[in-house]
Amino acid sequence: MVSAIDFYFDFSSPYGYFAAMRIDALAAKYGRQVEWHPILLGVVFQTTGGAPLPMMPLKGPYALHDFERTARFHGIPFKLPAAFPLPTQGAARAMLWVNNHYGIERAVAFAKAVYTAYFAAGVNIGEPMNVVQIGTDMGLDPQALATGMDSAPVRDQLKAEIKLALARGVFGSPFVIIDGEAFWGFDRVDQIEALLTNGKI
Amino acid sequence: MVSAIDFYFDFSSPYGYFAAMRIDALAAKYGRQVEWHPILLGVVFQTTGGAPLPMMPLKGPYALHDFERTARFHGIPFKLPAAFPLPTQGAARAMLWVNNHYGIERAVAFAKAVYTAYFAAGVNIGEPMNVVQIGTDMGLDPQALATGMDSAPVRDQLKAEIKLALARGVFGSPFVIIDGEAFWGFDRVDQIEALLTNGKI
Repeated sequence: MVSAIDFYFDFSSPYGYFAAMRIDALAAKYGRQVEWHPILLGVVFQTTGGAPLPMMPLKGPYALHDFERTARFHGIPFKLPAAFPLPTQGAARAMLWVNNHYGIERAVAFAKAVYTAYFAAGVNIGEPMNVVQIGTDMGLDPQALATGMDSAPVRDQLKAEIKLALARGVFGSPFVIIDGEAFWGFDRVDQIEALLTNGKI
Repeated sequence: MVSAIDFYFDFSSPYGYFAAMRIDALAAKYGRQVEWHPILLGVVFQTTGGAPLPMMPLKGPYALHDFERTARFHGIPFKLPAAFPLPTQGAARAMLWVNNHYGIERAVAFAKAVYTAYFAAGVNIGEPMNVVQIGTDMGLDPQALATGMDSAPVRDQLKAEIKLALARGVFGSPFVIIDGEAFWGFDRVDQIEALLTNGKI
């Protein structure tokens, strides 16, 4: 039996979105499952001293251009949202709640729907009501989702998930851990494939 | 006639070293010349607020591992030097002086020798006398190199080169500009190849 691939991402991270659109197919090719872990880069950056890409001098404008170019290069629909970056606590908690109540398959479908709504359709996923709407469109109970994603246990769960991620060395999005080997960034897919193919890298 | 590829790098940057080992062959494949521009990340970071990778929490330990892994993946000899990172003013100025006096071909050979001495043989290139020795091994006049690399005009030239790089948006190493299109990082080689092949990306 092979272990699952741990996939860490922030819903406001374009490179996380690109990875989210590819990770399941990549894992399936090598008979692996994927564990999806929403995190909050804002919290991570309190530990690492990192900052949101678009805010950085020179690197910010470059990143905005690179998002579009990388999306085009990989054939992934992308349009920089009007609100970017934005807080993703609501989206992350909602995904955890969906996972708790409906299991990982629906949670992953929900995560992909949230990412696509944000980066392909421009929906402001910083607004909890928009996040609830995405769940509603999938057939989830809006009231239960709205209450659940804002509940104390789910808030605590997200905090604990992020602590756990930090303890494992996660500092960015996307971040992938396979058999103890860590990969940061959508541009490590070639090395990930080498590891999955050869069992080592 | 096609324009040259502008290649910016810091002699203390492992990813810059990897790119330096590949850029000429890549460019030649598409009939392009490469203009080699040594820069100092320490100066660049004063503008961008960046910091040396190894100093960053979580990201630092990851980077040290990723250097080794990426070198292995691409078949490039690499051993993390005992002194890392280190000041590269001397190496950068020496390369400019070699370029001024012997032309680009010898300057590039010198740059590759400096990078290899540092990242494959562990030579401390922060010591000017070691930089001079690398030039001497290539048949350059040690006294002229030692004096030239420390001269006021060459110091001013490096400052001006870095200002020009910043004005063009350079914020890291390696950084490549082709026909106005900017690429940061050794992991953009696939997109660079696409641009060189198709004339657009």
